[in-house]
Amino acid sequence: METGKTGRRTGSTQTRDAILEAAIASFTGSGYAATTIRGVARAADVDPALVMHFFGNKDGLFDAALRGAMPIEELASVLAGDLSSLGVRLTRRYLEVWESPQTGPRIRAIVGSIATTPAAAQIMRDFMSGALAAPLAKNLPGQHPDRRAILAAAQLMGLAFARYVLAVEPLASMTVEELTISVGPSVQRYLTGDLG
Amino acid sequence: METGKTGRRTGSTQTRDAILEAAIASFTGSGYAATTIRGVARAADVDPALVMHFFGNKDGLFDAALRGAMPIEELASVLAGDLSSLGVRLTRRYLEVWESPQTGPRIRAIVGSIATTPAAAQIMRDFMSGALAAPLAKNLPGQHPDRRAILAAAQLMGLAFARYVLAVEPLASMTVEELTISVGPSVQRYLTGDLG
Repeated sequence: METGKTGRRTGSTQTRDAILEAAIASFTGSGYAATTIRGVARAADVDPALVMHFFGNKDGLFDAALRGAMPIEELASVLAGDLSSLGVRLTRRYLEVWESPQTGPRIRAIVGSIATTPAAAQIMRDFMSGALAAPLAKNLPGQHPDRRAILAAAQLMGLAFARYVLAVEPLASMTVEELTISVGPSVQRYLTGDLG
Repeated sequence: METGKTGRRTGSTQTRDAILEAAIASFTGSGYAATTIRGVARAADVDPALVMHFFGNKDGLFDAALRGAMPIEELASVLAGDLSSLGVRLTRRYLEVWESPQTGPRIRAIVGSIATTPAAAQIMRDFMSGALAAPLAKNLPGQHPDRRAILAAAQLMGLAFARYVLAVEPLASMTVEELTISVGPSVQRYLTGDLG
């Protein structure tokens, strides 16, 4: 991947990889906010200008780290095959990617570095289980009401986060009624349906 | 709510509310990381010791802000009634709480302040829609493949966030197979089921 534009040889693929590794270490160790181009350059023993040459800015680094961590091809490989069982295949593979000793720790660390601070995660956790799931579980009959309630809460939280915090399309422009009709039966299934 | 422990009158409920308002303004305006006890005290025109008296520390402030923003009673009010339609009622009310001009802006701002920086949100948004949902949508027949794919992605992301980033129980200690059986059919419904 040497461009040959300048006389200076940079061993560019290896250099790029080294910078990316340093960036990942910083994002996961110090967090997104505390990571700087200068610090990453220092850790990779290169000039900050070289970091910017490869990645543009801190967000370019983060984007590369996120895309590098999530093995998209591994997820995409389940797309081929019977459409009527794609949901189950995709869910399993997606969980496996987050769990795998090879890919999991890095994905969890990178997503975690952006999403919360440890103290904030604790507060969110208490809120989700104490304020949202616990009152719901009390109203559910049968086995595992706690599992049912937290599965419903995770679905609702994922929906709200994608729609209201990330504003990802086309979720953000669907109406409340469209979303209620689309998502409500999934929540109902968690509350009272057959969960296997 | 005056305790009368000291001779000094603090007008404590009003003072507490004023501190909480200042904290919410700081969390939503400057973000979680940049908010300090000292800054909140200055904005509320009180001594930092008084902030700590009421809320303990920054995380106590954040916890109070989060709980104050989310109208739990309004959510809980849907619990009474027919269990077989609770999922739809809960989904609708939950969305309404995030949408309402009274409660929505504050919830979105507080959750957003903890969850991401604006640049990071942009990256997550691009990743979720470009890397996860787009390849999925290409494989779906019928109408609204883009909606189906992003609904599936939001479900999977919420699950992963709750389990791997927040580590909320009992999600965190369920097995991959239990989760696959529980969540897979919901994802399948988004991909190929009747969404109303």
